[in-house]
Amino acid sequence: MGGAEAIGVGMLGYAFMGKAHSRAFQAQRALGAPLQPELVSISGRNAEKVEEARARYGWAEAVTDWREQVADDRIGLFDNGGPNALHAEPTIAAARNGKHVLCEKPLGRTAEEALAIWSESERAGVVHMCGFNYRFVPAVRLARELLEAGELGDVVHFRARYLQSWGWDASASWRFDAALAGSGALGDLGAHSIDLARYLVGEPVAVSALVRTFVEGREVDDAFVATVEFANGATGTLEASRLARGHANQNTFEVNGSKGSLSFDVERLNELEVADESGMFKRVLVTEPEHPFMELWWPPGHILGWGDTFTHEIRHLLSAIAGEGSVAPHGATFEDGYRCAEVCDAIVRSSASGTREAIAYEVNTP
Amino acid sequence: MGGAEAIGVGMLGYAFMGKAHSRAFQAQRALGAPLQPELVSISGRNAEKVEEARARYGWAEAVTDWREQVADDRIGLFDNGGPNALHAEPTIAAARNGKHVLCEKPLGRTAEEALAIWSESERAGVVHMCGFNYRFVPAVRLARELLEAGELGDVVHFRARYLQSWGWDASASWRFDAALAGSGALGDLGAHSIDLARYLVGEPVAVSALVRTFVEGREVDDAFVATVEFANGATGTLEASRLARGHANQNTFEVNGSKGSLSFDVERLNELEVADESGMFKRVLVTEPEHPFMELWWPPGHILGWGDTFTHEIRHLLSAIAGEGSVAPHGATFEDGYRCAEVCDAIVRSSASGTREAIAYEVNTP
Amino acid sequence: MGGAEAIGVGMLGYAFMGKAHSRAFQAQRALGAPLQPELVSISGRNAEKVEEARARYGWAEAVTDWREQVADDRIGLFDNGGPNALHAEPTIAAARNGKHVLCEKPLGRTAEEALAIWSESERAGVVHMCGFNYRFVPAVRLARELLEAGELGDVVHFRARYLQSWGWDASASWRFDAALAGSGALGDLGAHSIDLARYLVGEPVAVSALVRTFVEGREVDDAFVATVEFANGATGTLEASRLARGHANQNTFEVNGSKGSLSFDVERLNELEVADESGMFKRVLVTEPEHPFMELWWPPGHILGWGDTFTHEIRHLLSAIAGEGSVAPHGATFEDGYRCAEVCDAIVRSSASGTREAIAYEVNTP
Amino acid sequence: MGGAEAIGVGMLGYAFMGKAHSRAFQAQRALGAPLQPELVSISGRNAEKVEEARARYGWAEAVTDWREQVADDRIGLFDNGGPNALHAEPTIAAARNGKHVLCEKPLGRTAEEALAIWSESERAGVVHMCGFNYRFVPAVRLARELLEAGELGDVVHFRARYLQSWGWDASASWRFDAALAGSGALGDLGAHSIDLARYLVGEPVAVSALVRTFVEGREVDDAFVATVEFANGATGTLEASRLARGHANQNTFEVNGSKGSLSFDVERLNELEVADESGMFKRVLVTEPEHPFMELWWPPGHILGWGDTFTHEIRHLLSAIAGEGSVAPHGATFEDGYRCAEVCDAIVRSSASGTREAIAYEVNTP
Repeated sequence: MGGAEAIGVGMLGYAFMGKAHSRAFQAQRALGAPLQPELVSISGRNAEKVEEARARYGWAEAVTDWREQVADDRIGLFDNGGPNALHAEPTIAAARNGKHVLCEKPLGRTAEEALAIWSESERAGVVHMCGFNYRFVPAVRLARELLEAGELGDVVHFRARYLQSWGWDASASWRFDAALAGSGALGDLGAHSIDLARYLVGEPVAVSALVRTFVEGREVDDAFVATVEFANGATGTLEASRLARGHANQNTFEVNGSKGSLSFDVERLNELEVADESGMFKRVLVTEPEHPFMELWWPPGHILGWGDTFTHEIRHLLSAIAGEGSVAPHGATFEDGYRCAEVCDAIVRSSASGTREAIAYEVNTP
Repeated sequence: MGGAEAIGVGMLGYAFMGKAHSRAFQAQRALGAPLQPELVSISGRNAEKVEEARARYGWAEAVTDWREQVADDRIGLFDNGGPNALHAEPTIAAARNGKHVLCEKPLGRTAEEALAIWSESERAGVVHMCGFNYRFVPAVRLARELLEAGELGDVVHFRARYLQSWGWDASASWRFDAALAGSGALGDLGAHSIDLARYLVGEPVAVSALVRTFVEGREVDDAFVATVEFANGATGTLEASRLARGHANQNTFEVNGSKGSLSFDVERLNELEVADESGMFKRVLVTEPEHPFMELWWPPGHILGWGDTFTHEIRHLLSAIAGEGSVAPHGATFEDGYRCAEVCDAIVRSSASGTREAIAYEVNTP
Repeated sequence: MGGAEAIGVGMLGYAFMGKAHSRAFQAQRALGAPLQPELVSISGRNAEKVEEARARYGWAEAVTDWREQVADDRIGLFDNGGPNALHAEPTIAAARNGKHVLCEKPLGRTAEEALAIWSESERAGVVHMCGFNYRFVPAVRLARELLEAGELGDVVHFRARYLQSWGWDASASWRFDAALAGSGALGDLGAHSIDLARYLVGEPVAVSALVRTFVEGREVDDAFVATVEFANGATGTLEASRLARGHANQNTFEVNGSKGSLSFDVERLNELEVADESGMFKRVLVTEPEHPFMELWWPPGHILGWGDTFTHEIRHLLSAIAGEGSVAPHGATFEDGYRCAEVCDAIVRSSASGTREAIAYEVNTP
Repeated sequence: MGGAEAIGVGMLGYAFMGKAHSRAFQAQRALGAPLQPELVSISGRNAEKVEEARARYGWAEAVTDWREQVADDRIGLFDNGGPNALHAEPTIAAARNGKHVLCEKPLGRTAEEALAIWSESERAGVVHMCGFNYRFVPAVRLARELLEAGELGDVVHFRARYLQSWGWDASASWRFDAALAGSGALGDLGAHSIDLARYLVGEPVAVSALVRTFVEGREVDDAFVATVEFANGATGTLEASRLARGHANQNTFEVNGSKGSLSFDVERLNELEVADESGMFKRVLVTEPEHPFMELWWPPGHILGWGDTFTHEIRHLLSAIAGEGSVAPHGATFEDGYRCAEVCDAIVRSSASGTREAIAYEVNTP
């Protein structure tokens, strides 16, 4: 630790993601990240609130214009945790100024916007990561490792859904404003499922979907359902809703292959259900010493929380900036953010057209 | 019981369904059905096996040609539990001869075939029922009652899947023969999910689907996925597979409405998960005295088995024949069998066409 | 079947157990038991109710005095499903008359009474079985097989509890009458747990217990807790209650050994949770062809009900009478009924004395 | 925050608890604790390891003798996270020097030792807290609140067990050394269950127990079982084991009252199962805004981890030192540590004597 290099960080946003990221930066020292963050400044439009966040989360300065951060030479990493409409401009400006960039999901409100963010950051040669934090749940990383090791054989099915219920009772919010949010359940929740589909199974090639706004007066979707076809031939379903009573935050997926199956739910994020050819699912509590990330934590059976996923995510990014490994494949790059956006756009097109929509990436699929 | 009328029964089929139905007929006395079955004859092509079944299950006679049964005046109820290719001809012949008819699902191998069976039976004026036995699970009946009572408010989502795993390791079977089976996972498993969708939520009006045969050399589908749109505006997903490792027989559904949610799985068929506006799901063990069918059974917490659903189903049919209530709405009529077949056909069409397919019933939707 | 011998059956009791046993006798034909029951007569004090039960459950005659049955030469098997106070006299009389005997649990209201029933039946040389039906749950039989095969290594812990909640709201019943019932939760529920402890782990040698009547005005216990020590050195806890809100009928046990663990709950009686040295529990749905009793039933994943345990139990008894195997070790003999009663008595003594009570069997422990 | 007072902290121990507490101290700023910790020094016998811990966890100084800390005027709070044998002397010395004290559980290796620690600290007039961190799980606090509000009516049963499995495969450790650890599963795991029993139900008055060392060559117990009687008349069972295959860290309890029940397991520490008079258990995900501690965290359904319990615990202590509320009743004082030790001692005595042992507290029970 004594010898660990430091990197100055500027963060945009002080609400939900501001809190989650700030705590994750603070936790890096105890985890021994190879590059230690220095919390230079936090920005937001509301001067009072951003100052309160500064004091609480330990940032050195509070500013009301992200342009100050983008121009600040002390800052080597720009972390964009602002609302969706503020993803493109500040992130691109930061990258152009040579800062490494972390941007929350969904990367852009459309595939076009996401493509611009990715292209510009790539051109600038900086390290970029999109905040798909569920890749950093130990059980999800374990799922990926089992799949890569061939433990499931050939994958035939994938099903994911992300269900919440707060949409029935919610009052007005930027999350219902089309200009600010871009989309509703699709971009907010569905994007996570799509990223996990890509991380675990591979590239989606076509979708058929229904996107719906059930509650009157909202500009964005409350829910969607889709069938999906993957490049490797697997088929599946994707779904998200803010109107599913009984669910606080059920982000769940299941993968079925010729040799076994996996099942996960973020409400019990320390558990992975694993089946092999011999029968039913076995509950694996992903807290054993040999499990992903667990060298950083506690003895078996002492579970992690949702907030700890950001700690892993930011440690991963700092390692990549330090030259220890790359963001891909375990972290999502801006390319992943862009590809996810193409799937979202195809879902919207299919709902309107009534036809199965191919997903046309502006890049050669590997 | 002393005074209960009797009805002669002839049954086609002695395998899986033959066993399930025979046991259900035998259980009617203890349940006090208003019409008591007399087991006149059982039929099948293999003389030795049908005789063995006769002796074991208590049928008076064994015959090798169902035409004998259709012509037998002692028989008032013809129960068709044979393979799918033998549903239409014997059932229609029996109905034309004035016998009440029970036919296993799927009613026909195509909507056209199912329509013929329904039309002819309706024309003959006999009582007809299609063997969708999951309507007779107490938890499923309770789900319907809660929905009818408005406990869930407006339904917005339905998702059902029926997952088995035996398809990976299975040897040849009539179930993989297109001429005999008509379809694979779709008609065998998916038909149950579609019937439950109709029973619980209402009429599907359009589907988008992918139907797949993953295992080489099979003539019928191994799996399908679909999105579905209902007449009342709800959206959902349907899925079935014989290739889902980890699942022996997961027939599950979930309904989400504006005021609550319901969730069910046939592997735990005595349980219904119920949520209201106040939060998460509550496990209801559907064995209390006030629960459907439980006046026939045990004290609370003493669970029923899958075989008992047929006991309820046949009791329901006997009551309808006796003039105590009608098959619909809690039992599936041949109209329900036909409507289910239309949804299956639309799923097949959509998979081929790549477009959302409307479901065109040959009857006015209520 | 055609050639299967028959045995005349007389049954005492027409309520809960009368219904369960009658249905089980009727199911024997379909299961191909080597000895087929003929339902000669059912007895009970209330002439009207016993006649109703006769008609409903298919008994040839209804009688109001069990002495008629004991003297009836047509009867080869006497099944005592009456209240606890009526276990000893009729069962002993039947045995003395050379009839095989099945008696519900608890065998006697005290160890002394149970010892008399066992001794007299043994002396009479008849086949005897005590109705511990949970031994005939496929998952419980599987548990025993796994233990016998050494899959768990050396057993160190056993814990069982049997929890119901109806006691809070119940009105008067013979079950609260000390003279009729002998005990409350202890004999009614705890006896099942004790029998499972003996079946799975071995002979208890000492107990320390608290027996309590929480609801005023009741003559029998509502609940007990105990620690238990087994002959093989394992330790454990036993508990039963009629006052456990949230539980309809939780009859659960767990066994921990040096190489693995097992867990079971009768509310999900088709499931056995199994752990080995490699980690957590795996859910086994005990419906595969290779699982106990499943050659008699359905394809995988089609679950059995509580009532089916009696079908297995009575088939086992009929096989033993037919000379195909013996009641022990998989069925409970009257010796098992007696030994269970000794443990119950020691629990009562310990609660009163405040000391650990050794269990003194009137027989050499194997 | 700007105005929050600061308090210097000295910590003894750098292993498991050292890590957990260090992280919790660091998290206080973001949580806005009314008194902010300054990490003055960490101590341990191994100079190299304590220096490594210092750097990693952000302590200003590393020392090898706790006496330096006890004499250090900059330190206002002494946190003892060392092995059990090092609880008494340093804690008492710190208290005598006027420092507030936090000591890990079990407070002493015997009730006598625990009494000394409590008495001396009380005499010194400092704030004292014993590290029973499970009181700071939101679901446990919610359980206590529901009980206090009378939602469960009169409590009749309590059962708790704390099961781990690592004991089968473990190599030598201070945890198996009687002089260093005092006891095994009893003090390490059972103490948590006993503290929860006291926090939720009230004072135990008598126990009957079996304490066992199953694995040869160990000086301390591997497991115990006990029945327990509470001052309010409730009865229950207590159990702990390091030899329960299939369990990583199952710390579970259930409470049954006349009006409802509660159930909890630390492996799913965000969930509380709640039953009322109407039936079965309902899963409550304790992450709603109105739930305990959740004003500090995330939106519904975003779960907390085990490490976060220490964050709550230390915030609670800092608040008490700042004069905002007291340690009791929601935090455990040294009196609670002592009372827990008396129950542990009675369990040991009962196992040896074979009699029910009354628990004699050296203080008037409230």
